[in-house]
Amino acid sequence: MKIPKAISSTIESFESLPGIGPKTAQRLSFYLLHTPQTYLDNFSENIRNIKKSTVLCSVCKNVGESDPCSICSDSGRDSSVILVVEQPLDLVAFERSGRYKGLYHVLHGCINPLDNIGPDEIYIADLISRLTESNPHGGYGSQIAEVIIATNPTMEGEATAMYISKELRKTEKRDGLLKITRLGMGIPTGADLEYADEQTLNQALDGRRPL
Amino acid sequence: MKIPKAISSTIESFESLPGIGPKTAQRLSFYLLHTPQTYLDNFSENIRNIKKSTVLCSVCKNVGESDPCSICSDSGRDSSVILVVEQPLDLVAFERSGRYKGLYHVLHGCINPLDNIGPDEIYIADLISRLTESNPHGGYGSQIAEVIIATNPTMEGEATAMYISKELRKTEKRDGLLKITRLGMGIPTGADLEYADEQTLNQALDGRRPL
Repeated sequence: MKIPKAISSTIESFESLPGIGPKTAQRLSFYLLHTPQTYLDNFSENIRNIKKSTVLCSVCKNVGESDPCSICSDSGRDSSVILVVEQPLDLVAFERSGRYKGLYHVLHGCINPLDNIGPDEIYIADLISRLTESNPHGGYGSQIAEVIIATNPTMEGEATAMYISKELRKTEKRDGLLKITRLGMGIPTGADLEYADEQTLNQALDGRRPL
Repeated sequence: MKIPKAISSTIESFESLPGIGPKTAQRLSFYLLHTPQTYLDNFSENIRNIKKSTVLCSVCKNVGESDPCSICSDSGRDSSVILVVEQPLDLVAFERSGRYKGLYHVLHGCINPLDNIGPDEIYIADLISRLTESNPHGGYGSQIAEVIIATNPTMEGEATAMYISKELRKTEKRDGLLKITRLGMGIPTGADLEYADEQTLNQALDGRRPL
């Protein structure tokens, strides 16, 4: 018994997505047989155009509809702060929380030697040049006062944060005027202390605040 | 911050698939931005054509490339047995196990009053007429000797099995000549008795065999 070609190639397409195994791919493909053709046409069109109708913002490297993107071109935002994230979805998470009003920089990954991703494979150089270009007289000037590094708290994310911080300090002409910060670490809201790992508890102690 | 239209509509498409929540839909859609356009074109084409390039076999209602399907038109298969399954994927599972060599009948669902799915919404009438038509003189004749009902062991699947069995007996002219069987129930291979539920253990006891 062979699964019809049209179905088996759809299964293959689904299987190459992250987190979709062979069984899920099969289930999704057979599910599509029960959906109306208009849904299929629409889905098909969306996938075909997802890259064509989006552009990478030349300033912050976020995925948007225009270049520069809606955040970079928004004069209401605080252009003295840049928050550095790994992925566009991290930016979406910050925007959803609504507190941060500065600019962003999307690296599109983190330094990961095991996957052969070095500093040149992600948008680190663009971040540096974005800071130096903001003041043609050398140094970072007044425009950018702070860079918040918000890479993930994984080994790779930490290494990337260290690397960026070192590079920024190296490029900076006037010592210490640029504030480089890392996201606060500790207990997340709603967590149960009983199940927190040692590392997180230690970081929560290090980051304790006076009440 | 708005997610670009092209991405948000892809997220919506993914979200309507079963088992794909908003977060997974987001992750999959943003992942597509990193894939080559050839993959996107191919994926898009597969989805658009999945229904167009498959047909429902008029005999067994399986999804195939031709009508009758490759199983129904295979003269090497035992045409005296019909195995009744809920979904095409159940048929694929039986074909994968390789033991069964008879024909199939795909119901495309099971009787589920809560979802408003009655006997007329699935291919039960087609199964009955398939059996009666095989002998124009009334009764089931010699062609079909056994119907194995392999609906899922859920409440709905059991109800469907009971209903089909009753209908088949009603249609049958000569009592008891048609063998109607249900898949064996019990402990699945590799299971841990400690964690088996009461129902399964009772059914395993009922279905015990001499060694």
